[in-house]
Amino acid sequence: MTMTLTIERIAALRQRMDETSTDVVVLGSGAHLKWLLDVTPHADERACLAFVSATGAGFLMPALEAESVRTQTDLPFFAWSDDTGPDAALIELLADLSVSDAKSIVLDETMRADHAALVTDALPQAKRRFTMDTVGALRMRKATSEYETLKRNAQIADRAMKAAWAEMRPGMTETEVATIIRSCFADNDAKPLFSIVGAGPNGAFPHHHTGETALKSGDAVVMDIGAASDGYSSDMTRMAVIGEAPEGYSEVHDVVEKAVQAALAAARPGVKAHEVDDAARDVITQAGYGDYFVHRTGHGMGVEVHEPPFITASSQTVLENGMVFSIEPGIYLPGRFGIRLEDIVILRADGPEVLSDLPRSVECINA
Amino acid sequence: MTMTLTIERIAALRQRMDETSTDVVVLGSGAHLKWLLDVTPHADERACLAFVSATGAGFLMPALEAESVRTQTDLPFFAWSDDTGPDAALIELLADLSVSDAKSIVLDETMRADHAALVTDALPQAKRRFTMDTVGALRMRKATSEYETLKRNAQIADRAMKAAWAEMRPGMTETEVATIIRSCFADNDAKPLFSIVGAGPNGAFPHHHTGETALKSGDAVVMDIGAASDGYSSDMTRMAVIGEAPEGYSEVHDVVEKAVQAALAAARPGVKAHEVDDAARDVITQAGYGDYFVHRTGHGMGVEVHEPPFITASSQTVLENGMVFSIEPGIYLPGRFGIRLEDIVILRADGPEVLSDLPRSVECINA
Repeated sequence: MTMTLTIERIAALRQRMDETSTDVVVLGSGAHLKWLLDVTPHADERACLAFVSATGAGFLMPALEAESVRTQTDLPFFAWSDDTGPDAALIELLADLSVSDAKSIVLDETMRADHAALVTDALPQAKRRFTMDTVGALRMRKATSEYETLKRNAQIADRAMKAAWAEMRPGMTETEVATIIRSCFADNDAKPLFSIVGAGPNGAFPHHHTGETALKSGDAVVMDIGAASDGYSSDMTRMAVIGEAPEGYSEVHDVVEKAVQAALAAARPGVKAHEVDDAARDVITQAGYGDYFVHRTGHGMGVEVHEPPFITASSQTVLENGMVFSIEPGIYLPGRFGIRLEDIVILRADGPEVLSDLPRSVECINA
Repeated sequence: MTMTLTIERIAALRQRMDETSTDVVVLGSGAHLKWLLDVTPHADERACLAFVSATGAGFLMPALEAESVRTQTDLPFFAWSDDTGPDAALIELLADLSVSDAKSIVLDETMRADHAALVTDALPQAKRRFTMDTVGALRMRKATSEYETLKRNAQIADRAMKAAWAEMRPGMTETEVATIIRSCFADNDAKPLFSIVGAGPNGAFPHHHTGETALKSGDAVVMDIGAASDGYSSDMTRMAVIGEAPEGYSEVHDVVEKAVQAALAAARPGVKAHEVDDAARDVITQAGYGDYFVHRTGHGMGVEVHEPPFITASSQTVLENGMVFSIEPGIYLPGRFGIRLEDIVILRADGPEVLSDLPRSVECINA
């Protein structure tokens, strides 16, 4: 990330802070901080927090991390050591940023509860929000350079999925299939983040822990894969069947595909996120499977696999040109099989552009 | 983990809750929950929290995780879906556990700030603490079965360190050395957690990010390695030098070794943790390197690499028979080299037993 990009992002954040009357934004080690400053401190029980006010910025910094983080940023550090603890350094930092009497603070929702308590205890009069309308709002709108990285990552995920399909055989375990996927990601300089392979009834657990179950004829296999490259993620779910599909499979696959298409048709700039969820959910409910679609329709994606906007039944977030999110309805039939079809899209003026080039049709593996 | 162990641990927790007048303990996905219930839910932005009161226990459970977590526990679930959010389920759960008007709650300090806010917003009249005197206190005292696992893990780490020493050569990168360590861990069914290899001036960063720096003659190399096996960690730091040691090396190594020995001599049941830190720090300060020992002397270890008791200059924690912690003083000379020597010990009635069988003397690698 260039210094110019960091300066632009801080300026954009300060404008959002002004619009939302926010005195200070506090970020922990994680995706928000990486996005804003391209700084990735070691995360442990020591509070290492970045503070941004209208006029200043600085880090509450564990002494033993200072040398290492200094290679990533020129911002001032307010260092604390294990023997004294962070309280005095925090008071000094707040004074330096002229926010000792902050009325409105934004905390990184992903920071540890004890780190958040450290900040709120030091600013007892401040009203606390999380990042949804500041850093979160900014991260939702992708720039062209971000889109290009996401598109490239989606193409790598396509390759990993096809590599697994080419080698999958009955008798192979879920873990072995995941290993093929991970090694294809690694061959493309992408860091594997997850490779859920859920065979047969395991596919009915949306977040199945890939394990030693062997694939067998008649299994529907959920394959949900993603990796990180150039600081951004991929995420895609496709279905395979081994030999003959289980009873009722193609009807359910057809319902899920229609739900994806309904969501794609509903997603337009200006539409609220829940309208996209509604579109997918209505298709599934009308087909009689409403009780088996147990999660939201999608989530934003960027430096994190899951980030705003969340495509849920209750979200009032207005979708905008440049937002990137998943559309991934699913139907999970306990004891039988699960089907999820997931694509990442970038919202354009005339509708969503799907990043993957791989069709959502089921892949048939010879038994 | 056996069901008996879970029942024993819940009973022990309830006794601590009674002694500390705690109405409810709330744990997120992480080490506390794994220790207490051997449950390891997928951790993401959805609140998945375990609640334990004097008479009941249950989970606030994202609907899409329910089937998967059900395979790990029989406790009641209060499920919530993406479309409704967790608020109603949380109210129901608190009522069911008879803690809707809790006065004193303990939160897992590692849970996300927004999950903690969900709980504290629902119990605005409750005083909030973290787990230090409940779950944290219990986790500090290791049982015999835990000791046996930790000892076995330390022996695996010894093997990994020796494997790296056997293959290290000038020209090899830090990453290549780390790969040898990781692959030895993997060969012993241990999951590599970290393998910090800091060559030359990189060793002066206590948490150096192992990278593409090549080892060269005259480098002192900090090697801080650990892996997880059977649910517990290892953690050990040793030093190697390539060819001739850098100027001043052996004097500084000697100071750090004396600091380790002073800490070992100070660690006895009944002693406060800061006395152990004092013992190590005094040696280093008197040798004139006080400003270069930038971290605490040690940390507890068990299901996590870092857990209570923390051996810091200010800790009033009284050390007890059966506690397991690191002793790891270090001296970091910017631009030159760093030296850290770390051993994990279990405290016995007559003093600390070191888990590693590997001497702390410097390993000399031919240049």
